[in-house]
Amino acid sequence: MTERIFNFSAGPATLPVPVLEKAKEEMLSFNGTGMSVMEVSHRSKHFAPVIEGATEGLREAMNIPDGYQILFLQGGATLQFSMVPMNFLGDGGKADYIVTGAWGVKALKEAKRRGDPNVIFSTEDEGFRSVPSQHDLRFSDDAKYVHYTSNETIEGVEFKYDLEAGGIPVVCDASSNILSRPIDVSKYSLIYAGAQKNIGPSGVTLAVICDEMLEKVPENQYTLLDYKVIAAKGSMLNTPNTWGIYLIDLVCKWLKDHGGVEEMEKRNVAKAQFLYDAIDSSDGFYKGHADPSARSLMNVTFNLPNEDLEKRFADEAAAVGLDGLKGHRSVGGIRASIYNAFPVEGVRALVDFMGDFAERNG
Amino acid sequence: MTERIFNFSAGPATLPVPVLEKAKEEMLSFNGTGMSVMEVSHRSKHFAPVIEGATEGLREAMNIPDGYQILFLQGGATLQFSMVPMNFLGDGGKADYIVTGAWGVKALKEAKRRGDPNVIFSTEDEGFRSVPSQHDLRFSDDAKYVHYTSNETIEGVEFKYDLEAGGIPVVCDASSNILSRPIDVSKYSLIYAGAQKNIGPSGVTLAVICDEMLEKVPENQYTLLDYKVIAAKGSMLNTPNTWGIYLIDLVCKWLKDHGGVEEMEKRNVAKAQFLYDAIDSSDGFYKGHADPSARSLMNVTFNLPNEDLEKRFADEAAAVGLDGLKGHRSVGGIRASIYNAFPVEGVRALVDFMGDFAERNG
Repeated sequence: MTERIFNFSAGPATLPVPVLEKAKEEMLSFNGTGMSVMEVSHRSKHFAPVIEGATEGLREAMNIPDGYQILFLQGGATLQFSMVPMNFLGDGGKADYIVTGAWGVKALKEAKRRGDPNVIFSTEDEGFRSVPSQHDLRFSDDAKYVHYTSNETIEGVEFKYDLEAGGIPVVCDASSNILSRPIDVSKYSLIYAGAQKNIGPSGVTLAVICDEMLEKVPENQYTLLDYKVIAAKGSMLNTPNTWGIYLIDLVCKWLKDHGGVEEMEKRNVAKAQFLYDAIDSSDGFYKGHADPSARSLMNVTFNLPNEDLEKRFADEAAAVGLDGLKGHRSVGGIRASIYNAFPVEGVRALVDFMGDFAERNG
Repeated sequence: MTERIFNFSAGPATLPVPVLEKAKEEMLSFNGTGMSVMEVSHRSKHFAPVIEGATEGLREAMNIPDGYQILFLQGGATLQFSMVPMNFLGDGGKADYIVTGAWGVKALKEAKRRGDPNVIFSTEDEGFRSVPSQHDLRFSDDAKYVHYTSNETIEGVEFKYDLEAGGIPVVCDASSNILSRPIDVSKYSLIYAGAQKNIGPSGVTLAVICDEMLEKVPENQYTLLDYKVIAAKGSMLNTPNTWGIYLIDLVCKWLKDHGGVEEMEKRNVAKAQFLYDAIDSSDGFYKGHADPSARSLMNVTFNLPNEDLEKRFADEAAAVGLDGLKGHRSVGGIRASIYNAFPVEGVRALVDFMGDFAERNG
């Protein structure tokens, strides 16, 4: 077998090795059934413990209270950008949007197709380097909900707190920092996340939604775009992504074996600190993109003195087994994504490489 | 390793063993990258040959002409039931629907949320046992498209021909017989299929759509529900189900190695004939559901003298390694799904079991 490398990809991203090993071991016969988990009916007794395991695993990991449903959807966060206004905005309805990066911009665009979203805070003019504090925010009285992106994957800026909106339902795209640290789910009406960063492979979207929010879904929605119908069917309205849900079950078990989100937070803080320290102690050779107060624990974004050096940095790093460091094509620079499953050894290797590269090119 | 069993599940369904073995072998390091295919970025050079392989593999297997786009979507056929009217029906628009089973009913229901579909042929009153012949059909002059289900998975009835609608665009849900035999793609404007029968695992939907149809997509659709935008982005508007596309690539290679859809058709005819012969020669102990002229090659549906015997049949069969034979919960009876990857040995084993069971209980 080829040796594993360090994969800094922003998503799809590194999965825990024990999860991959278990999936490998069971590929031709899952749980002694004589079938792959991909081959069994989603309605069979074989699959029931898988979706139950994933559901209960997430409930425990996120400490999700009663009165919230856990849904496994498809289409990524991008389809949620549309489903949220389709289900909750109403024709021409109002909602408050906080825009702190490229994904927030995309979510806003879809809401405009349905209603009249109001941008109550945007950091676009300053290049998406910060997030508002709670007391910076003023919500609209007639907002059906407030929407924000808790971690902007491309720019690497992250909210450090659970946003509160004075009774207006809070809807959060948590795709790239879900499960990275404890949050208070009771403060949210809907949390959604593409699985492909901290939860599992691409092709599954997690939605955690409170019962009060489900009651607001209007009649006569397209069936597969209706949170209430999907919740009533236990995410089994039609065939879900069974392989993806199986991986989520395995990731939840791995997470529990490794101390849950509390332990992940400690590790994630330590990993990110290593990298931000390397940036800050480089005498300006490396420049962090985000304001220090908004620095993401998951996506560490920085620039080098020029684009040529950035390209060389990413190429040379890849050549020594540090893959996926090129920044998103829309913003350039360098991005090191270090989700839960990314090992601290990989961060150390990158820090060493950064020091060496700066010395050779500084 | 546990021995493999014979899995008659209707979908998710049996996958080719060499495909599973390859996926197993590469689980921790795909194509020598040191990463699982689930871990690499969908926009990376690592993944590019995978989606190209799946696309070109399908183009070759289905003999898809120029002027057609091959899309990898999410949400299953069920989301297509909504996307088709959203994109092509228009407010209150007309379309012709042919309803020959439970999936056709569901597709019709979603179209009614958008426009005014016209059921030009339904076999519901006779319990979905047949399909119309081409000369039974009269299309509406003002139909934006005609929609039909080429194989109804639950009832086991199948169209044996490529439907023609005199210039009206033909939209076909081919979820459960795609790739089972050659078809003339040029007669269709849009063919869609959930992958989990003949193409790959659940969580990917294939759409094959002609350029003229894409030109009909109106402006201001929700982005991820817009065929034209998704086609323009090469199915990479957002993160696709990368694992699913990888499996599709492997299935296409397996298909090619085994003679393509021409060879599959021969095998499928032979497999189905074995089973229908066993039914027809049972002196009425087994009764086929579908009219002989509409019998599906993929889903062989039949009844026993009573429900108790049907339950015992499915339970005893499962106990000897013939799994997944219980009919769909909505219609009962027995269903043997025998897609491309289902081995003829499994069909022989079922025929033997049927003879033995009839002798013991007849």
